[in-house]
Amino acid sequence: MFEELKQRVLEANLLLPKYSLVTFTWGNVSEIDREHGVVAIKPSGVEYEKLRAEDIVLVDLDGKAVEKGLKPSSDLATHLELYRAFDGIGGVTHTHSRWATAWAQAGESLPALGTTHADYFYGPVLCTREMTKEEICTEYERNTGKVIVETFREIDPKDVPAVLVHSHGPFAWGADAGSSVENSVVLEEVALMAFAAKMITPQKEVMQDVLLEKHFCRKHGKNAYYGQK
Amino acid sequence: MFEELKQRVLEANLLLPKYSLVTFTWGNVSEIDREHGVVAIKPSGVEYEKLRAEDIVLVDLDGKAVEKGLKPSSDLATHLELYRAFDGIGGVTHTHSRWATAWAQAGESLPALGTTHADYFYGPVLCTREMTKEEICTEYERNTGKVIVETFREIDPKDVPAVLVHSHGPFAWGADAGSSVENSVVLEEVALMAFAAKMITPQKEVMQDVLLEKHFCRKHGKNAYYGQK
Amino acid sequence: MFEELKQRVLEANLLLPKYSLVTFTWGNVSEIDREHGVVAIKPSGVEYEKLRAEDIVLVDLDGKAVEKGLKPSSDLATHLELYRAFDGIGGVTHTHSRWATAWAQAGESLPALGTTHADYFYGPVLCTREMTKEEICTEYERNTGKVIVETFREIDPKDVPAVLVHSHGPFAWGADAGSSVENSVVLEEVALMAFAAKMITPQKEVMQDVLLEKHFCRKHGKNAYYGQK
Amino acid sequence: MFEELKQRVLEANLLLPKYSLVTFTWGNVSEIDREHGVVAIKPSGVEYEKLRAEDIVLVDLDGKAVEKGLKPSSDLATHLELYRAFDGIGGVTHTHSRWATAWAQAGESLPALGTTHADYFYGPVLCTREMTKEEICTEYERNTGKVIVETFREIDPKDVPAVLVHSHGPFAWGADAGSSVENSVVLEEVALMAFAAKMITPQKEVMQDVLLEKHFCRKHGKNAYYGQK
Repeated sequence: MFEELKQRVLEANLLLPKYSLVTFTWGNVSEIDREHGVVAIKPSGVEYEKLRAEDIVLVDLDGKAVEKGLKPSSDLATHLELYRAFDGIGGVTHTHSRWATAWAQAGESLPALGTTHADYFYGPVLCTREMTKEEICTEYERNTGKVIVETFREIDPKDVPAVLVHSHGPFAWGADAGSSVENSVVLEEVALMAFAAKMITPQKEVMQDVLLEKHFCRKHGKNAYYGQK
Repeated sequence: MFEELKQRVLEANLLLPKYSLVTFTWGNVSEIDREHGVVAIKPSGVEYEKLRAEDIVLVDLDGKAVEKGLKPSSDLATHLELYRAFDGIGGVTHTHSRWATAWAQAGESLPALGTTHADYFYGPVLCTREMTKEEICTEYERNTGKVIVETFREIDPKDVPAVLVHSHGPFAWGADAGSSVENSVVLEEVALMAFAAKMITPQKEVMQDVLLEKHFCRKHGKNAYYGQK
Repeated sequence: MFEELKQRVLEANLLLPKYSLVTFTWGNVSEIDREHGVVAIKPSGVEYEKLRAEDIVLVDLDGKAVEKGLKPSSDLATHLELYRAFDGIGGVTHTHSRWATAWAQAGESLPALGTTHADYFYGPVLCTREMTKEEICTEYERNTGKVIVETFREIDPKDVPAVLVHSHGPFAWGADAGSSVENSVVLEEVALMAFAAKMITPQKEVMQDVLLEKHFCRKHGKNAYYGQK
Repeated sequence: MFEELKQRVLEANLLLPKYSLVTFTWGNVSEIDREHGVVAIKPSGVEYEKLRAEDIVLVDLDGKAVEKGLKPSSDLATHLELYRAFDGIGGVTHTHSRWATAWAQAGESLPALGTTHADYFYGPVLCTREMTKEEICTEYERNTGKVIVETFREIDPKDVPAVLVHSHGPFAWGADAGSSVENSVVLEEVALMAFAAKMITPQKEVMQDVLLEKHFCRKHGKNAYYGQK
């Protein structure tokens, strides 16, 4: 069942090695079918070269298997928490991409320093707070999701479709699996650029608000005018 | 019409992914036919893998479509402003290449630190001033071009065929579409080298004037002696 | 003899260029057959493109040739010292991979800054002390092994399956040749990430102990729940 | 004539793009036939993809053409100066490789920080002094060679087969064209590693003398024991 969903999730997962966002099996992409309440996600620890559409795992929003199959990604509970809390999203990607992970390891939010960032993220990509011992020791993956949701208490997740989990790495989301990967690729690019800009001018803080708004709205929302129609 | 022009602009655009200067569709190259007052430019948001010569958009110097076709790059107005102000140029390239963009995001001009730079740029590659709120909110892309032109008030754009737009990224130009891409490639190389040199010796300012002149003139102008004939 | 062992060691060695861990012939992988007391290792100075299974050299734990063949890697004595001291390991890899070597050259241990590190290394990847003149001038390669073993006096080499040899570069190990290469790949990734994180936040020291433990134990030991089964 | 010499020089030049040491035509390799006093070098400004053995230019030690052909590399006079002053060398390579050039642009010698460096360079790779106005304005390329030779007044060029020309980039040499390229590859690797090590531990100066000597002599000279025989 859900063959098209599986196929889309397979293809989105295969974009991770294509864009050099993963080493070995360190990444996973999922997509939700909101109508049927079904989430399709990469199986745990399976190599990308060997991944086939039929390996993609189907679960419901509580993480219960929808059909017999492989074990889902160990990060499933984080994906589910995001789908439950963020109504408008349809796909989630997690990677340990180098430069975004470096910012997460530094425990620093990624500042909006230029229009490349502003084209996709309407403000800084925030770094979550450190998790408590309790959050880490019980239901760790689910609590990872909860801490992400907490970070977006006053931010629309569609305005900033990514986050840096403290001491861990990035999660990104989008309308579907493919666009969550696209946002992951952009995040990695701007993480490198912001690293280099910070080294060149350590005191640099952020770009102008008006330029940030101009670029985000040039590509998103009702007044967007980028692309073909 | 203008099949050869379109073909040249197509090929120049395809150099951007070849030299790893673009992610997704973040770049565009144009060329002007001065005799007929026609500019050929990449269409907006079209993927490089799918780009064909017939997709290249033809406009006049006011940006009016010369034939029925796709929507031109959203940066068209910047290209046009450069063609209007800089008589001697025939091609323009815009990218968000990593290291050049990092300097633009840092709001710093790229200093001339070595002969690789001097072979192509006769002085620093300047970073433009920040644009005003008014410039950003009305005719943003055209004003981007005007701020570039303002930056070159006392510099010959043929001596330094590139610029860093503040908080945005690089534009480069040349005799035709292909040479504007070539200058973009060089800019990216020297942006990385200058980054590294600045990290090694933060107090380093610039190279010797006489060496800068020697190298620029070895490749450009009437006494050039680099290459065959 | 030992054709399967040679084949495995060949394949593990060929992973080094695949993962961009070596330039020229700067790396070597070995595996031990504990039952027969035989170690298979790359021959010295042979190019990877030309390496065949029959070129792999067989020696006993004293380094004596088990059959007529090529000269073993000049680092053989270091591998043997590790096999003698670390009971539980079956494969060893040595490279001069860029970012791990940079940390070794800086003489700094690689701090545990994030979950990518914690998934494989249960604590910092230590840098050995500088060797004495005597250790360098006599039985240098064997003494390199001894200094590594000394560094692990109070650490289980299975908990942290890698080390940085001061002013030299990384050694990693694992259950077999292949897993020692896998640990080398991970080490290189986390060495780059830790470099970048340190540049972003120089005062950053380490990640939370509880998160380190959570991630290491998610993948290793009896309560591991990563992967299929 | 000298078909084998041309073929070797062609192949050595083609290693430059293979090892990502050049952009466009920014590099050149030569080899000398000492018996006949003939130097074979890359022609000026010819693209690597189009380079054929018959394009390689033959000159004598005064730079006079030995046969009708293309114009030699504009850096020819530097190569010739090195062949005249350094008896024992047979090949010379010049590139603008990124990290070595960054050190040259910083005006800093590349310190010996680890065994990767020590395996090829018996001490720091020195940065030349800045050239005087007179040296730059008259016979610039030849004077570049003279400043390199001056830098080696008290160093055997076989002990440190490379140099960083101030504000310019690296030259390397070896027994033949191929080994001069090999040394250029190593130089680029250690330039990146030394950059990173310096960022991690800015106060780090050099490696132990005894370790430097051990590694250099393990690969070079009469007591070398690396490789097959």
